[in-house]
Amino acid sequence: MSKGYIQVYTGNGKGKTTAALGLAIRAIGAGKKAFIGQFVKGMHYSELDAIKTHLNNIEIKQYGLDCFIVNKPEEKDIIAAKKGLDEMKNIILSGKFDVIIMDELNIALYYKLFDVKEVLDILKRKPAHVEIVITGRYAPEPIIDIADLVTEMKEIKHYYQQGVQARKGIEL
Amino acid sequence: MSKGYIQVYTGNGKGKTTAALGLAIRAIGAGKKAFIGQFVKGMHYSELDAIKTHLNNIEIKQYGLDCFIVNKPEEKDIIAAKKGLDEMKNIILSGKFDVIIMDELNIALYYKLFDVKEVLDILKRKPAHVEIVITGRYAPEPIIDIADLVTEMKEIKHYYQQGVQARKGIEL
Repeated sequence: MSKGYIQVYTGNGKGKTTAALGLAIRAIGAGKKAFIGQFVKGMHYSELDAIKTHLNNIEIKQYGLDCFIVNKPEEKDIIAAKKGLDEMKNIILSGKFDVIIMDELNIALYYKLFDVKEVLDILKRKPAHVEIVITGRYAPEPIIDIADLVTEMKEIKHYYQQGVQARKGIEL
Repeated sequence: MSKGYIQVYTGNGKGKTTAALGLAIRAIGAGKKAFIGQFVKGMHYSELDAIKTHLNNIEIKQYGLDCFIVNKPEEKDIIAAKKGLDEMKNIILSGKFDVIIMDELNIALYYKLFDVKEVLDILKRKPAHVEIVITGRYAPEPIIDIADLVTEMKEIKHYYQQGVQARKGIEL
């Protein structure tokens, strides 16, 4: 079993969650097992259908509510996120999954849904073979520091600027 | 059917091909059909296994040889790439696929395996509903110009710097 690292995908450009999804696909192609936990998100994304229908070596769970946080998080957002972090802690420490994606973890940290120290504690205790993939804009310094690989997705041009709405099967 | 756009993922950071893969997954989750053509690459990547085994709504083909171009391309690299572009042209114009990924197209252009004008001609003639996703570092100006969305994947930190080799199921 190869050593696992900590990867971070951050920045304001499109492609962070999809890059993590692609990593999960590549992992199962090599016989590995992947887990995707999505913080903050509780809305329906098309990847949920694709994974549940076709990909039984990938497990996916959402730890967010069915609407985005608008101004500041409410008590229920914090409860959902804390529950998610607890669950993911057990999943990571169990060593049963080779690739574990903490989707939008950085956003959960940005909204202070839980403390970065709790996350660092989990990451430091991860089994050696487990690869962790963290996504979301605004990755805080302690996450960048502990990561082995960091990619910033930088928006150069975006069709939202042309007024294009998020589309099913592309953004959702 | 929603209007399709042209997306580009470029830059020196990790996550370009995996972001495109993730888009293909999201697309099929919404009942769309996806095609992935990989230029320059002919080596075995784990996503090939994942897609062939689990995902029959995604078609994937490689238009490269089994080793990377080291210094300058040989005649056989050019032949393989031109054949790929011809095939992808037909696939794009047929309108049978909703999301079409031209993986490492920018690298093929960088090595002048074919002319950017040929690519622009195809892109201008694409059926309205087709979404095109182009990956590879060194995206040339004309590709950036014609694109509706461009994300630069910027390497902030990479474990290759620590001497980590590409790993099966993560990079391969």
